[in-house]
Amino acid sequence: MKQSMTLIPTMREIPADADVKSHQLLLRAGFIRQNASGIYSFLPLGKKVLQNIEQIVREEMMAAGAVEVLMPALQQAELWQESGRWYSYGPELMRLKDRHDREFALGATHEEVITSLIKDEVKSYKKLPLTLYQIQTKFRDEKRPRFGLLRGREFIMKDAYSFHSSQESLDDVYQKMYKAYSNIFERCGLNYRAVIADSGAMGGKDTHEFMVLSEIGEDTIAYSTESDFAANIEMAPVDVKYEKSSDAPDSLKKVDTPDQKSIDQVSGFLNKKPEECIKTMIFKVDNEYVAVLARGDHEINDIKVKNALGAVSVELAAPEETKEKMDCPVGSLGPIGIEDMKILADTAVEFIVNGVCGANEEGVHFINVNPGRDFNADYADLRFIQEGDPSPDGKGIIQFAKGIEVGHVFKLGTRYSEAMNAAYLDENGRSQPMIMGCYGIGVSRTLAAVAEQFNDEKGFVWPKNITPYDIHLIPVNVKDEAQTKLADELYASLLQHRYEVLHDDRQERPGVKFADSDLIGLPVRITVGKKAADGIVEVKLRETGEVFEYTKAELLEKLQSILA
Amino acid sequence: MKQSMTLIPTMREIPADADVKSHQLLLRAGFIRQNASGIYSFLPLGKKVLQNIEQIVREEMMAAGAVEVLMPALQQAELWQESGRWYSYGPELMRLKDRHDREFALGATHEEVITSLIKDEVKSYKKLPLTLYQIQTKFRDEKRPRFGLLRGREFIMKDAYSFHSSQESLDDVYQKMYKAYSNIFERCGLNYRAVIADSGAMGGKDTHEFMVLSEIGEDTIAYSTESDFAANIEMAPVDVKYEKSSDAPDSLKKVDTPDQKSIDQVSGFLNKKPEECIKTMIFKVDNEYVAVLARGDHEINDIKVKNALGAVSVELAAPEETKEKMDCPVGSLGPIGIEDMKILADTAVEFIVNGVCGANEEGVHFINVNPGRDFNADYADLRFIQEGDPSPDGKGIIQFAKGIEVGHVFKLGTRYSEAMNAAYLDENGRSQPMIMGCYGIGVSRTLAAVAEQFNDEKGFVWPKNITPYDIHLIPVNVKDEAQTKLADELYASLLQHRYEVLHDDRQERPGVKFADSDLIGLPVRITVGKKAADGIVEVKLRETGEVFEYTKAELLEKLQSILA
Repeated sequence: MKQSMTLIPTMREIPADADVKSHQLLLRAGFIRQNASGIYSFLPLGKKVLQNIEQIVREEMMAAGAVEVLMPALQQAELWQESGRWYSYGPELMRLKDRHDREFALGATHEEVITSLIKDEVKSYKKLPLTLYQIQTKFRDEKRPRFGLLRGREFIMKDAYSFHSSQESLDDVYQKMYKAYSNIFERCGLNYRAVIADSGAMGGKDTHEFMVLSEIGEDTIAYSTESDFAANIEMAPVDVKYEKSSDAPDSLKKVDTPDQKSIDQVSGFLNKKPEECIKTMIFKVDNEYVAVLARGDHEINDIKVKNALGAVSVELAAPEETKEKMDCPVGSLGPIGIEDMKILADTAVEFIVNGVCGANEEGVHFINVNPGRDFNADYADLRFIQEGDPSPDGKGIIQFAKGIEVGHVFKLGTRYSEAMNAAYLDENGRSQPMIMGCYGIGVSRTLAAVAEQFNDEKGFVWPKNITPYDIHLIPVNVKDEAQTKLADELYASLLQHRYEVLHDDRQERPGVKFADSDLIGLPVRITVGKKAADGIVEVKLRETGEVFEYTKAELLEKLQSILA
Repeated sequence: MKQSMTLIPTMREIPADADVKSHQLLLRAGFIRQNASGIYSFLPLGKKVLQNIEQIVREEMMAAGAVEVLMPALQQAELWQESGRWYSYGPELMRLKDRHDREFALGATHEEVITSLIKDEVKSYKKLPLTLYQIQTKFRDEKRPRFGLLRGREFIMKDAYSFHSSQESLDDVYQKMYKAYSNIFERCGLNYRAVIADSGAMGGKDTHEFMVLSEIGEDTIAYSTESDFAANIEMAPVDVKYEKSSDAPDSLKKVDTPDQKSIDQVSGFLNKKPEECIKTMIFKVDNEYVAVLARGDHEINDIKVKNALGAVSVELAAPEETKEKMDCPVGSLGPIGIEDMKILADTAVEFIVNGVCGANEEGVHFINVNPGRDFNADYADLRFIQEGDPSPDGKGIIQFAKGIEVGHVFKLGTRYSEAMNAAYLDENGRSQPMIMGCYGIGVSRTLAAVAEQFNDEKGFVWPKNITPYDIHLIPVNVKDEAQTKLADELYASLLQHRYEVLHDDRQERPGVKFADSDLIGLPVRITVGKKAADGIVEVKLRETGEVFEYTKAELLEKLQSILA
């Protein structure tokens, strides 16, 4: 591509409203432009990277046995009403009416559309399993769009859906998709982890998120220093072998703790360690109150509470609600004496000896509390994992990292097929709900994640697999006949050898050309300068900064190994 | 692709709500499914054809120097307000509000978005010309969606926009795009014509529509039997060498024509031919009334009236309006005696000798009317061309055909750049509005147009360039080991030779497999039947029905020439 014919509007300044590196560089190097909050145009370079990622996705989907389709963005409200999500999805789902006043959603996802399609077209177990995917524009009216393409309102997704007549078949396709996703993110050059994730309100069981490690990530990943264990912090099980201290239990005693409310305050006041304190919180679990206990240095994880109780909804009771229920404010709660409420405690609590807890009287605590002797509770793993905990797989220590979610594989089960009545006849002629899986990749978000990982102080450093062009060919002075001639010859020859070449044929100062080239960040720069008359060019590698001089004759052979 | 792994839901019956062949077959052969009125899903076969067409479009766009981008569907209302189309586009433009109550249009086209983009990024003549295109989903809330993909509400378009600093540059790119469009439709195998079209309210000058000839087309094309002249009937100039009869002019005379209103009635009553009558119609032209005359056997073309008068709006006055203005009802109007109104007549009128016209009194006409002697008028080409007229280029005779518009190339001029203030600095540092062109192809409509042209009574007959697969490989009985083994071997070998193969590995009756195969319509069917044990297969060409038997060894060589 001749640079004079395309649109690469580079900028020297950092745009004021772009606060992460990928967003800044995608704007500065002329890959994207914003149309409205969270809505972007892909300019020629951005579109090329997008297509390269899409090509990788298509190849891996094909290898996983998924078949491409294309479903519409305009989706009838009735479908979403059938699944119930018309009401539960909230304002993120964009809605509109057609000229006949019929209601539509703008596709935020396609479970409803595809379930409705398959329900009409697949009636027998003989046609299962079936995995379909599409690469398509999605709309979600994010409350706070930010970080450029990372959290937009109109974006490109690859979404796949699988349909099965058995759990084993779902497990099989899930594994294939998991593998395909690993391949995709690897081929994009990303430093990522597949992490165990929360299945949320979806009702499914197995689910993994593919997270690109990045400081700007909105999710926290707990990973092992020594194995490939990784989980969303919300989902990481805690498997610590706690031990009791050898101290003998002392007698339970009430002490005044005026104005001491937080664990830090109480433990400081009583000269105890936070891990010797028991914190007590009142949760509302499916309309019932439950007292949940954890060690003072631990944080309770709602999701674990929910799972431990097999509950549908779990939320911390409001302070006023708690005060009314317990007749005591939040800072002085404790399990001793509670009779009309279930008491659920994190495993660690059971190992506390001579601990501290609230006495359910304002400004009063118990000391020398010994679980088992002084109160009974059901114990379970209820807390968030912490850095330094042993990895649950027994190998290594947990550390935290921030991650950008770029993919998600999910066993949906029969959540949608039951709601929408998508059934097949099994081998015995009995009607059964289809078992489903769904698998998503944020394609435009993946572009941004790569942009976030591959850059230096001068600009992008694109990985070879998805770079918009392989080579930036730069005649330093296009008014110099020898340079222009050699550059034109090389351009033709490189294209013939199927390289993707950006040919900077612009009449600009060398400084501008080189700065643009560094900013755009193609893997190889070929500079045609003063030695053009001797048939010698300079090759500079963007990643390492290494510079070589080659004759025209050597060039093609050298490129072959450089761009292998 | 193994047929058991994909979704090709064929139907034997003709769907009740599909009234054209392409729509029926796209449904019956399992290429598409309807989601809502005018909204479709592309199933795997439909998606493949779409991609093949898109690939052709991309190659030809690249050859024409256009560069690919991707703009959003969500477009801020402000942009459309700036161009004025927010108000003029009507209910076809789908509109919605985001969670902050900001108004958006769902992109029906992208002139506003791209003009706004280029206005910000291109400031100098040095960066022009520039041609950008995208392949993207468009939304138009058609009043009556019909004919399946031919007139939908959500559809895929290739839209391109060019920006120039001179008319010559626009002319040059217009020619390149015209050529690219011709290549695209040719490569799709379509029988099409590039026709001169109306530039409408767009204000541009040159414009061509690419029309696929088809009985179900909504437009009428006037084309020459002997040259490549073709025009939308609305735009075809009439160039007939009329001659006067040699009769001597008789004296003008009023006659009673009670209840005779139409040309047929009046000419019959007076025993004259329709071509001897003058029809007079009152038009409202930019708020002024004009009397427009044509021969009784001709139809007046509003667009020509508009162009002849350099007017912005032209419409036929309502009968009551005419009656009030002329003090005479519509059936008895005539030019004689009109003094306070411009009289415009079609060229043919001037050659009438001893003709008939209304006398501006109800039920009264003049006979022996001779233009020039009895009234004066301005003459111009105002009528629709008719079958049998000589072609305006002097070669051959005009015939009519119906056409489906699949593409449109258009010189926009400065319509949008002026409205939206998209200016560049010229070589003298003066600010100038950019000169623009726009170029559209209905990609999903092109698919339907091919489907409409390439079929027979059994199903589709896909042209080689865009067929979803090259070969339908059919083992007749998948329980027969020899057949299965040979089919599997051939499948592997054909894929290796880069053929696109649909392998019917389903356990279905042969009749079902063959009927499905004819319906789907791939160019080549390879049947692996009883002679499999001898390594012999049958090759059947879908287009001609020819059947050959080849050994496994011969097959690949033969396919090479068949699918060349």
